[in-house]
Amino acid sequence: MKLSLFKKLLLGSFFLYAAQPLMAQTKDEAMLKDIYKYSLTKGESYEMLRDLTKNIGARLSGSPQAAAAVEWGRQLMETYNFDTVWLQPVMVPRWVRGGEDIARVLNSSTHGTQELTVTALGNTTGTGPDGLKAEVIEVKHFEELEALGEKGVKGKIVFFNYPMKSEYLQTFQAYGDAAKYRTSGPSEAAQLGAVGAVVRSLTTSLDDVPHTGTTRFGLNVPQIPAIAVSTQDAEMLSEMLQKDKNLKMYMETHGKMLDDVLSYNVIGEIRGSEKPDEYIVVGGHLDSWDLAEGAHDDGTGIVQSVDALRILDALGYQPRHTLRAVMFMNEENGLAGGREYAEQAEEKGEKHVAALESDSGGFTPIGFSVDSGEGTLAKVQSWKPLFEPYQLHEIKAGYGGADISPLKNQGTPLFAFRPDSQRYFDYHHTPNDVFENVNKRELELGTAAMASLLYLIDQHGL
Amino acid sequence: MKLSLFKKLLLGSFFLYAAQPLMAQTKDEAMLKDIYKYSLTKGESYEMLRDLTKNIGARLSGSPQAAAAVEWGRQLMETYNFDTVWLQPVMVPRWVRGGEDIARVLNSSTHGTQELTVTALGNTTGTGPDGLKAEVIEVKHFEELEALGEKGVKGKIVFFNYPMKSEYLQTFQAYGDAAKYRTSGPSEAAQLGAVGAVVRSLTTSLDDVPHTGTTRFGLNVPQIPAIAVSTQDAEMLSEMLQKDKNLKMYMETHGKMLDDVLSYNVIGEIRGSEKPDEYIVVGGHLDSWDLAEGAHDDGTGIVQSVDALRILDALGYQPRHTLRAVMFMNEENGLAGGREYAEQAEEKGEKHVAALESDSGGFTPIGFSVDSGEGTLAKVQSWKPLFEPYQLHEIKAGYGGADISPLKNQGTPLFAFRPDSQRYFDYHHTPNDVFENVNKRELELGTAAMASLLYLIDQHGL
Repeated sequence: MKLSLFKKLLLGSFFLYAAQPLMAQTKDEAMLKDIYKYSLTKGESYEMLRDLTKNIGARLSGSPQAAAAVEWGRQLMETYNFDTVWLQPVMVPRWVRGGEDIARVLNSSTHGTQELTVTALGNTTGTGPDGLKAEVIEVKHFEELEALGEKGVKGKIVFFNYPMKSEYLQTFQAYGDAAKYRTSGPSEAAQLGAVGAVVRSLTTSLDDVPHTGTTRFGLNVPQIPAIAVSTQDAEMLSEMLQKDKNLKMYMETHGKMLDDVLSYNVIGEIRGSEKPDEYIVVGGHLDSWDLAEGAHDDGTGIVQSVDALRILDALGYQPRHTLRAVMFMNEENGLAGGREYAEQAEEKGEKHVAALESDSGGFTPIGFSVDSGEGTLAKVQSWKPLFEPYQLHEIKAGYGGADISPLKNQGTPLFAFRPDSQRYFDYHHTPNDVFENVNKRELELGTAAMASLLYLIDQHGL
Repeated sequence: MKLSLFKKLLLGSFFLYAAQPLMAQTKDEAMLKDIYKYSLTKGESYEMLRDLTKNIGARLSGSPQAAAAVEWGRQLMETYNFDTVWLQPVMVPRWVRGGEDIARVLNSSTHGTQELTVTALGNTTGTGPDGLKAEVIEVKHFEELEALGEKGVKGKIVFFNYPMKSEYLQTFQAYGDAAKYRTSGPSEAAQLGAVGAVVRSLTTSLDDVPHTGTTRFGLNVPQIPAIAVSTQDAEMLSEMLQKDKNLKMYMETHGKMLDDVLSYNVIGEIRGSEKPDEYIVVGGHLDSWDLAEGAHDDGTGIVQSVDALRILDALGYQPRHTLRAVMFMNEENGLAGGREYAEQAEEKGEKHVAALESDSGGFTPIGFSVDSGEGTLAKVQSWKPLFEPYQLHEIKAGYGGADISPLKNQGTPLFAFRPDSQRYFDYHHTPNDVFENVNKRELELGTAAMASLLYLIDQHGL
């Protein structure tokens, strides 16, 4: 696109819109404008994220790196103008990968082998150094597994090859549809006597990147080794199984659960001037999977939360309620931090007016999900004229977020920050979830959107 | 973000929305759903783009590579079910860079030198192999240039250091604001006797990538050599000038305009069943700058246009009007293709019902700009309920596009496809405008949005 025509575009828009009545800018309009300008010109979320991802990096719950992240978060908030910064102790699970994850298939007639790109699923127990060798059987969905029954599954490695569906507009919907094969597939297979499980990675991309994530076993179900395979290799494996019904697989993983470890949520707050005992919370999770930098998941949510409060303060805004930024620990494989935060709030009788979570990546904002009564939704939707100049069009009922979900018990209205979802599952739970895949402007727009919602809730209540 | 909570999200949304009345799906709703599903699951725009960018690559007007792109476009459309595919001859300018662009600064006291990352501006005449050495003078804007006058500028190299403003929500607005320094700065400087011009690259990013683009000289103004410098080096140069008022610069460029060359617009059409003599046109530009693959600018527009028509056809849709996909030649440094197309349409009395252009990158769609009367705008806005499920919220008056703009003479309503603009100027007119920076889903959503608008115009008129 070339230049001169943009001038025309600008002029064109000007004249076309000039007919609209000029309204006095309201206080809220002015504040949102200031917030956006500040975030886009003096925002620090991008540099915070660079520091977290490049100098701390991967930070799975209970790891030394997670401890480093806690100290990083504390020091970061101490450098800003928060009234109080503290650590909230919480015991978290400690899973270690323990070594390199390996899988290869063995052709039953040629005896040729083929390596697969895989990663052990989080919280799983490994095969140990001797590995595991067994025939592979592919199922497209749970119905096929049931049809095979114990007879068809016993002693085998079950390969769940259910692709995440491209046709959903929101990739989170496709994830919600497909992820049951990762979270419950291995347990279902184990119940029928399978000795191992392979799950197609959760992404609509066809590439050679494996996606980890948690899996859970039912009570009294044997905890079999379970891995995710890249989508390309899932396709290849499926083709191989067409030609070789007796295809075997060797897999070797080393995961184990160690004893729980003391860790912390990191909390910073700016005291409210009118209602200091009523809290508006914004947060994300500080832990990440072990195989990447945890940039979009959820470094971006952390730095946006801190910078949102920093920006309100830098603009000289005096909040009516107490504003808290919370870096929750252990969202990925336990949610201990989110639960502890809500329990402590309950114990101390802290009234939480609202909670906002950012855990869908640092992409261009499109709106907010609201998990509350109809009245709250209507109130937030009444702010649409304020949001729409910033491309925040989607203010809808929906889920708020994992870490803040335990606050629902005390009736707190929950909000999810919603960015555009198209690229999230290119990176999610993979080594590609790195700083370089976060765009500065997109991140800063998210920070501004979150600060704007916090401001409006603080000013007008819910 | 972890899995189990998405299930809750889905269930939550389901129950929250279940109260809404179930309406019968209209024909239009069903068609848009089919278009989106087809594009996201069987779309070919991404593979078309890979082929264009990787096997043709850079394709400046008049170059052998542009000729290759024309033949590529013809063959591509021939493989699909178009009724007619043809080449429309058009003479285009032929600018060549001619060699490596070099700039370095020379400290007046230490005699130390420092290389700058630069690129010659398009259509400029080079210094030739002997280069050009002169003192540099920085101006922040045209007012400063005027104040300096001939006395302060004569014999010098003028450095325009006007940053593209980060605070605009739409980056195209920031571009419209800043780009006059690239398009007119060198001419204004030359008029006051400057011997060369350096322009700060047009991006809000602070990086080491120079952005090319056209510049234009007024009648009887000497055509001085002109380059763009990366934003990082613009900052460095500015700092150096603070310390060394007599800083000199050596620049060496080799650009020249050769004789015009015969080239082509590439056109494919599907004949209308009811009004074959009325045309709905969709297009982008086939040419690109010489220093990159022209992925977002404008390979994406080309492949979206072709795939939009292919998808409508693949879905068995029989258009009422004749649908044309046009690959315009020479948008970047002349607009000869766009003008020729409109002239031919005029000469042949072809009535153009609507024209849609995609030339803002292959990012997640947010809506369309409409350049037409109020009635047309209102009509298209009446389709909002159809668009909104696909995040197409912004249906506003605005500029249509460069290549289709000459059709305005015959009163054709013009439409610009509008994707999210945040990342566009990270890549625009740089070596980073490559296939790898295009996301498959975002591209395919754009194709679907465009096909949807074409379908609605074809069905309901304007």
